[in-house]
Amino acid sequence: MQHFDNDYMEGAHPLILERLMATNMDKTVGYGCDEICASAREKIRQACGAPDAEVHFLVGGTQTNATVIRALLRPHEGVIAADTGHVALHEAGAIEAGGHKVLTIPHQNGKLSAEAIDHYIESFRNDEAWDHMVWPGMVYISQPTEYGTIYSLSELEAIAAVCRKWQIPLFADGARLGYGLAAEGADFTLKDLARLCDVFYIGGTKVGAMFGEAVVVPRAGLIPHFFTIIKQQGALLAKGRMLGIQFDTLFTNELYLKIARHAVEQATRLREALVAKGFQSYYNSPTNQVFMVLSEEQLESLRRCTTFSEWEHLEDGRTVIRLATSWATRAEDIDELIAAI
Amino acid sequence: MQHFDNDYMEGAHPLILERLMATNMDKTVGYGCDEICASAREKIRQACGAPDAEVHFLVGGTQTNATVIRALLRPHEGVIAADTGHVALHEAGAIEAGGHKVLTIPHQNGKLSAEAIDHYIESFRNDEAWDHMVWPGMVYISQPTEYGTIYSLSELEAIAAVCRKWQIPLFADGARLGYGLAAEGADFTLKDLARLCDVFYIGGTKVGAMFGEAVVVPRAGLIPHFFTIIKQQGALLAKGRMLGIQFDTLFTNELYLKIARHAVEQATRLREALVAKGFQSYYNSPTNQVFMVLSEEQLESLRRCTTFSEWEHLEDGRTVIRLATSWATRAEDIDELIAAI
Amino acid sequence: MQHFDNDYMEGAHPLILERLMATNMDKTVGYGCDEICASAREKIRQACGAPDAEVHFLVGGTQTNATVIRALLRPHEGVIAADTGHVALHEAGAIEAGGHKVLTIPHQNGKLSAEAIDHYIESFRNDEAWDHMVWPGMVYISQPTEYGTIYSLSELEAIAAVCRKWQIPLFADGARLGYGLAAEGADFTLKDLARLCDVFYIGGTKVGAMFGEAVVVPRAGLIPHFFTIIKQQGALLAKGRMLGIQFDTLFTNELYLKIARHAVEQATRLREALVAKGFQSYYNSPTNQVFMVLSEEQLESLRRCTTFSEWEHLEDGRTVIRLATSWATRAEDIDELIAAI
Amino acid sequence: MQHFDNDYMEGAHPLILERLMATNMDKTVGYGCDEICASAREKIRQACGAPDAEVHFLVGGTQTNATVIRALLRPHEGVIAADTGHVALHEAGAIEAGGHKVLTIPHQNGKLSAEAIDHYIESFRNDEAWDHMVWPGMVYISQPTEYGTIYSLSELEAIAAVCRKWQIPLFADGARLGYGLAAEGADFTLKDLARLCDVFYIGGTKVGAMFGEAVVVPRAGLIPHFFTIIKQQGALLAKGRMLGIQFDTLFTNELYLKIARHAVEQATRLREALVAKGFQSYYNSPTNQVFMVLSEEQLESLRRCTTFSEWEHLEDGRTVIRLATSWATRAEDIDELIAAI
Repeated sequence: MQHFDNDYMEGAHPLILERLMATNMDKTVGYGCDEICASAREKIRQACGAPDAEVHFLVGGTQTNATVIRALLRPHEGVIAADTGHVALHEAGAIEAGGHKVLTIPHQNGKLSAEAIDHYIESFRNDEAWDHMVWPGMVYISQPTEYGTIYSLSELEAIAAVCRKWQIPLFADGARLGYGLAAEGADFTLKDLARLCDVFYIGGTKVGAMFGEAVVVPRAGLIPHFFTIIKQQGALLAKGRMLGIQFDTLFTNELYLKIARHAVEQATRLREALVAKGFQSYYNSPTNQVFMVLSEEQLESLRRCTTFSEWEHLEDGRTVIRLATSWATRAEDIDELIAAI
Repeated sequence: MQHFDNDYMEGAHPLILERLMATNMDKTVGYGCDEICASAREKIRQACGAPDAEVHFLVGGTQTNATVIRALLRPHEGVIAADTGHVALHEAGAIEAGGHKVLTIPHQNGKLSAEAIDHYIESFRNDEAWDHMVWPGMVYISQPTEYGTIYSLSELEAIAAVCRKWQIPLFADGARLGYGLAAEGADFTLKDLARLCDVFYIGGTKVGAMFGEAVVVPRAGLIPHFFTIIKQQGALLAKGRMLGIQFDTLFTNELYLKIARHAVEQATRLREALVAKGFQSYYNSPTNQVFMVLSEEQLESLRRCTTFSEWEHLEDGRTVIRLATSWATRAEDIDELIAAI
Repeated sequence: MQHFDNDYMEGAHPLILERLMATNMDKTVGYGCDEICASAREKIRQACGAPDAEVHFLVGGTQTNATVIRALLRPHEGVIAADTGHVALHEAGAIEAGGHKVLTIPHQNGKLSAEAIDHYIESFRNDEAWDHMVWPGMVYISQPTEYGTIYSLSELEAIAAVCRKWQIPLFADGARLGYGLAAEGADFTLKDLARLCDVFYIGGTKVGAMFGEAVVVPRAGLIPHFFTIIKQQGALLAKGRMLGIQFDTLFTNELYLKIARHAVEQATRLREALVAKGFQSYYNSPTNQVFMVLSEEQLESLRRCTTFSEWEHLEDGRTVIRLATSWATRAEDIDELIAAI
Repeated sequence: MQHFDNDYMEGAHPLILERLMATNMDKTVGYGCDEICASAREKIRQACGAPDAEVHFLVGGTQTNATVIRALLRPHEGVIAADTGHVALHEAGAIEAGGHKVLTIPHQNGKLSAEAIDHYIESFRNDEAWDHMVWPGMVYISQPTEYGTIYSLSELEAIAAVCRKWQIPLFADGARLGYGLAAEGADFTLKDLARLCDVFYIGGTKVGAMFGEAVVVPRAGLIPHFFTIIKQQGALLAKGRMLGIQFDTLFTNELYLKIARHAVEQATRLREALVAKGFQSYYNSPTNQVFMVLSEEQLESLRRCTTFSEWEHLEDGRTVIRLATSWATRAEDIDELIAAI
């Protein structure tokens, strides 16, 4: 029996554990003010080509989204997101609990298009009643998206241009960023994100860490007192060093990218094998998530070999499922699953 | 030049002004604890056939929606509404500012159907990830709707049954309730609302009052300490008597219904005349709002005779407009407008 | 039997009612965009010597405090107030419901001193843990205070200087502003408030209006999109004209000041008479509120002649009470009460 | 040079690290639904003598306080706390960000007394204006307190009785609970807390874990849908197993108590040595925190041997400092510090 439910089933990359062991009894100040965090920040700044960037370490994705969005918006503003965006659907109303509306636009392959964003804001500004409505105050995208797809560099540039046109910040949720960077056909880099986004984060939880997300604010000072806002949101880890250790390790010798590439390769093998066996691909994700649409029969047969997530129940009775690989997926697991189907 | 922009262009019904004059120098305690408020409450209870109902007077509609919804929901819950619902679109994010998501369902003629609500909740409960999502905690409907349409008694009963099935409260926004009760074909009464809703309000601002909405909680005690929550929301009028006077007057000799009937009659005359002149009706509203869809030419010609609201710009270049009558509309105004077109 | 419970027991000044009658069937656009509101705004700007000021009309005091404070503060900030401040005690947690802490400082005669504010902020900045604490983001004062006392011009200047020193806005709650301006010994004017405050409001509810508070933002643009924030807070009156009429009337021929002076005179007569009869004054308020401290016996005897508010129960068994006059108090009422005691 | 700044300077207890290593590549479902979490919950239930208790694992203290308080209170309610309470001072306004006021009562040795709570609520209920004020909706205590003191069993029972009298829940912040349980003279147990509190938590971050707080709800069902509220607050760890592993280890063979006892012993040694050297104790804490009040001279001399926290600057020029031991403090560290002073 295999398990491909999601990409956070295992612990942390062995190199991280090793470092945790090695430093365990060291004494450092709390809240991320220690030297290992400083080192991790510096490595991230270099990887992003953003020498002046602020880097903050938070614990999880929903927390990070809620904290950043609340920190960026004024009371009358909302955040534009795809209707499939994590903030729109699967954060239990965390954004609204912070006082802000999620302004959804129908997705295309899990993505927002620059045109759709521009049209949304333009319509809003032309609406006779605009000042009785929630002002679109920022744009949220996920890279890669919740459907495993990725924005190309030109798509990112177009979205950033729309944001600049309307003078609102662009925020990218990178909970699975590594798998996007490592995807076949990906033509964007961390440097591009740092150039185009006002805030983005590099997901650790799903890409090698035990937990942790590194928020990058390329132009420092954009969010005054962000540290205190993080504290207010309950997102400040007392033993902040634990986050520094993880990101310092992930950003040493390109470990982050290397382990992401491995996960994407295993996903590709799995996708191709499933298609070869007659299963139908749903979203053509080039990252670590494999979406298939299955008949009731196929569903039952697959359930005998592995666990996975049921994503959507289609009108025609079929079910969209997701299998996720991760940095920890062994090639043998894929072999065995393919053999078993 | 006529003005049919909306139904809150004039002051208050003359009988209300008269009573304000007559009582002006009386001294009463504040916050609605005076005898005139008590009298108004009693008249509303009788009109609703709900002898035990709580009645609270608030100032305006957005305020009332925000206060009631915040009072009814727990933190993880949201409110189901039509995507055209006032709370979803035109309250500048007041519901989200209170911490709650508006869970929208596509409207049908401005309405929610019992089936759609049931399906929404059932899908939610069947979703693998339901406990990471906003719990549907109540249903919001507008009677009449933002498009001037009304729910029939059987539609209301079906919605109330769905709410009881899932054990969530039903809340009806009655900002224009009088015009719904007075509509041709309306087969529901205040007593029905009191029987079927957990909370609803009787709009004064748009139906004869200078301002004011009367919130009815048919089964008293549903919202403990609602008074303090109203205060917290900034919705408690110091000189509460002013609200009592208005509703006491409106609920004496059925004034509320009589003036609403007048407005609906004028709207009907206007609608029929416009259709006779070749304009196309958009939503077939039986209440005081007249929606028409106009070509650019028609728009320009109508602009010469009257002011109105532009509601929506259709893809085909035409514009949906709204003309609203009110208790204050004079038959002569309609005559003149018809003559002028 | 007399009634001096508070200063909002009667309706509106007769000149306001007259004007409401005269304009009642006029049709105007909603939300304060009409010409009467424009005229009222202009008169207030002139009275304040602030030709560029923004003026917004809201309905009540708690609502205004909550809206202004929420609009001014960022998430990690709180508002400094006296521990007797209305926002700290009697608004049912409206400021906290908006997400912000009220940072209280012990009052002196109902007032904050510039020194105490400066010391508070300085201590905060020197605290090792300041970035784990709520940042003092603005100062709230009431003029006159909840105990009827007033800030002198030099006290206001000192507080404003502290605010400028620390670069935070100064907000004055003027729910009873007229009675402060009219107080004997008051040496500040509306022009001073406009010069020294970043936001303040001119209370109507307690000074001649049926309801309404006029928020003045002397330097326009301080709060972008304040209109939408007012809407979000449920504080935007649909028939905004009603507010314009009231303030336009109050600011014609100095009506606002004249009626306030009358109330203060009656309060002075009452205070002096009570002291002459052996009652003990508590706070030496020069405005329309009369605070006395009464033994149980005195309390019972006074209860036979008039109603009033019980403010505080002292440890020694005595009770602090408040009698309030208003623009509507008749000289004969005071005569009768004095005779009756 | 020694470091006694706080009790979260080191990593995790070696047995926890060992177990993290041993299970690292196991695959489990997320969000705390795995079997190790189930085991940890069961052990905590047993330690608490509360077979039906709900146990939830969160990441940090501020987060836990904010989540529990928001989950327990209705909108108009606030939380009673000592003015030195962590929620009142050092959580950057997290409680207010959730919409609720912290109702502070002056502390006595860092503690709230049952009498003071009872008096506060009674005064509130007797206040003429109570329904314009924040309703005291729960009581928050810290055990041990922020000043290292502990509530005795009889004090806890008295507070619980007051809470039952007024029908409001009692919530105990146990961020340092182990050090309280292990303190000399402590006469309360986990079973007592489970009997007397409605919610409390067992702090891991400061007592052996890398991070994590175990929230115990002794009477299950008190907070419906608490899981979703935790998610909304951003407090749900994706790799929930990590929390299960830590608490399962801490609650095996009484590790939690054993390591806490060690820390308290070291603190006692340190305190006694400092007093013997002429330093003055400030709060007589029997737990792991050592508060001393130092002259400027003493401060300088101590700074040469160790780091610590500066807590308060007294009017007389002296400074209150805190030295904290932890499960990780070595007896040799204490020896060396004592020798160095």
